[in-house]
Amino acid sequence: MAELRRDPILGRWGIINTDKTANIDDFEREKHEPKKGLCVFCYGNEDKTPIEIEAFRMPDTKPNTPGWTVRVIPNKFPALQIEGNLDKRGLGIFDLSNGIGAHEVIVDTPYHDKNIPELEIDEVRDMLYMYSRRAMDLIKDKRFKYIMIFKNYGFSAGASLEHPHSQLIALPMVPKNAAEELRGAQKYFEFRGRCIFCDMIAQEIKEKKRIVFENDDYVAFCPFVPRFSFETWILPKKHHASLYKYADSAEKLDGLAAILKEVLLRLKISLQDPAYNYIIHCAPSYSMESVSYHWHIEIIPKLTRVAGFEWGTGFYMVSFPPELSAQKLRQVKK
Amino acid sequence: MAELRRDPILGRWGIINTDKTANIDDFEREKHEPKKGLCVFCYGNEDKTPIEIEAFRMPDTKPNTPGWTVRVIPNKFPALQIEGNLDKRGLGIFDLSNGIGAHEVIVDTPYHDKNIPELEIDEVRDMLYMYSRRAMDLIKDKRFKYIMIFKNYGFSAGASLEHPHSQLIALPMVPKNAAEELRGAQKYFEFRGRCIFCDMIAQEIKEKKRIVFENDDYVAFCPFVPRFSFETWILPKKHHASLYKYADSAEKLDGLAAILKEVLLRLKISLQDPAYNYIIHCAPSYSMESVSYHWHIEIIPKLTRVAGFEWGTGFYMVSFPPELSAQKLRQVKK
Repeated sequence: MAELRRDPILGRWGIINTDKTANIDDFEREKHEPKKGLCVFCYGNEDKTPIEIEAFRMPDTKPNTPGWTVRVIPNKFPALQIEGNLDKRGLGIFDLSNGIGAHEVIVDTPYHDKNIPELEIDEVRDMLYMYSRRAMDLIKDKRFKYIMIFKNYGFSAGASLEHPHSQLIALPMVPKNAAEELRGAQKYFEFRGRCIFCDMIAQEIKEKKRIVFENDDYVAFCPFVPRFSFETWILPKKHHASLYKYADSAEKLDGLAAILKEVLLRLKISLQDPAYNYIIHCAPSYSMESVSYHWHIEIIPKLTRVAGFEWGTGFYMVSFPPELSAQKLRQVKK
Repeated sequence: MAELRRDPILGRWGIINTDKTANIDDFEREKHEPKKGLCVFCYGNEDKTPIEIEAFRMPDTKPNTPGWTVRVIPNKFPALQIEGNLDKRGLGIFDLSNGIGAHEVIVDTPYHDKNIPELEIDEVRDMLYMYSRRAMDLIKDKRFKYIMIFKNYGFSAGASLEHPHSQLIALPMVPKNAAEELRGAQKYFEFRGRCIFCDMIAQEIKEKKRIVFENDDYVAFCPFVPRFSFETWILPKKHHASLYKYADSAEKLDGLAAILKEVLLRLKISLQDPAYNYIIHCAPSYSMESVSYHWHIEIIPKLTRVAGFEWGTGFYMVSFPPELSAQKLRQVKK
């Protein structure tokens, strides 16, 4: 029989197949077939992108030329535009405003074929450091209430370019999913006087069953109520509401770079290079010292298609329970 | 510039591309390639499915033999099982229960190659009548708080069998998305004393811009804040909280069958037979006379992939505004 499990933060139920477990080979994997033609994110093509916003560069190299290690550019097809005012207005029962925001692309590395599992830890660290620098720069703009950084890897995760890159979006409001998570964590804090994520980390480390990997400062586990098989979260063991503020120097990010590389490498080996998204969940710009919210990374492999049941209910059916996902990921032979 | 639009029911924002509109030919369409081999939903293979729950049958035909027009069977791989008790319990900070529920498959028609656009109106009506009959039967079981009926059409919408079929799931709790919709509608009712869907229908019929089709009793429009390009809702013009209770005889469903066929045919022609889901949104079993909730069908074509932005924010970026989607659907030449 399946188990119905309730996420204590969002109140979202999941239907977890705990007895007749899916066969890992039945998941849909995609072939990452190399695309032909020019890659605008590679060395030498800097003039094919919009003008760079920021880059880590070798001494004596100029912007928009080779010699960078991480490079940030505006999204060529931005969902939102940085110029203008919000101009909120009504239209009968509806509300609308101008599409103000920022939409940046972080080119993670100059190497077209090296994703996070193949990069050196200090290269991953520099990418994460750039995430924080860009977020802290945009947080200064008081129009932006929420910064979200995420990565789409592979076709079915929505990636359209194969060169390793991440995206940053700055929004003039706290988005629905983040607001729900913040509210859930706040309610728990009011009730128990503790951070729910801190409690969750303590329970996971004690139970061990869903732990994927840990180092001194970070822990990775498959959450008790995942949306997807092999969903994995990475959290700092100490309470911090935001990666961005806390990451005021690249050195502090070594442990995070190490665990992110480790987890993505284990997912890659276990699931034959699956498509995935990861999303960095941080507190909004105006509450970066929150005692109730705990920043983390959610990694969601795309192994199945979302269907009418999920769209209709907001519940997820998970064919591979997190206890087994974590076990598979722990047992990876590298 | 894009527009940020706020859904008045859920408070969900959408980013609607209203100026540089996507090219309709850039959407991802899938080829529906006929599968080879035995179809367990076709005439003559009734013994290859679990034992039928209910069917509309020609006189003198026996259950689990040919001669049916609509046939209902238990899902062979049910997400939830009908036997047993909920047995709610805690596990540290988590809550869980047994996976109790019902999961049925409604085989819409004996014709393997006829989907709703190709069926006669009275055949669609019989399918809808069966939806209502199954729902009303399961509502008698007090363990079930919510019945959801939906259809997955095409690979990227999650369909695994091509023979036209729908699914019914009975849940022991009101699922997250439905609860949010109910709460939003209830808040509006408390504030204004009216059903928000009734107000929305009035505004859409007055503005005309997003209307796809209407007949005496039903209206179809592209909602002001869609999640997907070409998303289309069908609603009864008169206030009713649930399709199921109100559908106590097949004749009342003629108008609904006609508009559902019409809208799906227009989507099929406009978008070259896209994958889609539709979901019937009704009030929970215990409030089928709700004054604040208005039942409706949401049709969501699958033309783009959901990526990190949507998973992270719960917001949707829509490249084709509903005003233009509705215009294209109105202008379809049949």
